Amino acid sequence: MNQRYNSNLLDTAVSELSKLPGIGRKTALRLALHLLRKEKEESVALGESIIRMREQIRYCERCHNISEEEECELCSDPSRDPTVVCVVENVKDVMAVEATHEFNGLYHVLGGLIAPLDGIGPSDLEIDSLVERVGKEGVKEVILALSPTVEGDTTNFYIFRKLEGTGVEVTVLARGISIGNELEYTDELTLGRSLLNRIPFN
Amino acid sequence: MNQRYNSNLLDTAVSELSKLPGIGRKTALRLALHLLRKEKEESVALGESIIRMREQIRYCERCHNISEEEECELCSDPSRDPTVVCVVENVKDVMAVEATHEFNGLYHVLGGLIAPLDGIGPSDLEIDSLVERVGKEGVKEVILALSPTVEGDTTNFYIFRKLEGTGVEVTVLARGISIGNELEYTDELTLGRSLLNRIPFN
Repeated sequence: MNQRYNSNLLDTAVSELSKLPGIGRKTALRLALHLLRKEKEESVALGESIIRMREQIRYCERCHNISEEEECELCSDPSRDPTVVCVVENVKDVMAVEATHEFNGLYHVLGGLIAPLDGIGPSDLEIDSLVERVGKEGVKEVILALSPTVEGDTTNFYIFRKLEGTGVEVTVLARGISIGNELEYTDELTLGRSLLNRIPFN
Repeated sequence: MNQRYNSNLLDTAVSELSKLPGIGRKTALRLALHLLRKEKEESVALGESIIRMREQIRYCERCHNISEEEECELCSDPSRDPTVVCVVENVKDVMAVEATHEFNGLYHVLGGLIAPLDGIGPSDLEIDSLVERVGKEGVKEVILALSPTVEGDTTNFYIFRKLEGTGVEVTVLARGISIGNELEYTDELTLGRSLLNRIPFN
């Protein structure tokens, strides 16, 4: 339904808004009319912030996280430990790990996971640059912090094999029952794994 | 939760996006990261379409519908009948009536309904300009096409009283059971009204 409103400008804005994920034409029209009703400054500020963000944000040359400079804030922070590198799938995962305040090393953003069914192979991801970094930057530990899915496991295994023999320690996030979860509702795979990988109580 | 991402530009874009109705901070972040991943041209086109729309769209001086000129496309269309004016609450209702292809007159957009509880009185709406239009433009019929709510009925009545004595015919949208609705599920108020206002079968 490519309804024409009685303004080409409105039409264009609705079309552009409806390209956003999860936003259909009806919602796009609602948003557009909302932007028309609001103060001109506010609506223009939204448009400008999108343009500025898209034009000025680039990717860190070292860890491939989003950045405003050649090297991102995290990589150029001297208080962080460059010998520990946490490998994540995407930018959102960097934010998720940062939000824990439990990590003080650097990151390496792969930009995806190996998924042959979707046509994503190792060469589409930042894996070679990770191996190179490990060799060049004196990294002592690589923490694999990928999703516990088939794709995540495949990628973990591929990276592990690539780093074999470099002397770097490769670790993976602990898997087990989530904190606050009831034991009886934990799926059997997770429960079984957390039994096998039980740790000393202290 | 005013989470800081590691980029002020991203931060600003997320804040601006989360001001949109129905879009929280999490969705705003998802949209912003989506815009970062897309082709630069596409994301910039979205931003520009919003700015252009907000800066260039204005309201028709005659009917108060959105317009790119002083007078909107509908008002300046010589094939439409200027003696019949359909009074609607907002711009979306113009689109709804237009979509029926059953109306060939002009519109008058009130910009809201009389709602004393929300502090909206007749002077906040385009009612005086309607009365003036009726006097000046030789309007023969005013169709009240407002929502069948308390506010809609109040506004209908107010406009009806204002137009009394001007000789213009005032009509209101037919109310009754919706086409395709099952009789047993129609609410009793609607069913009762449609009984009272029954029309000859032909």
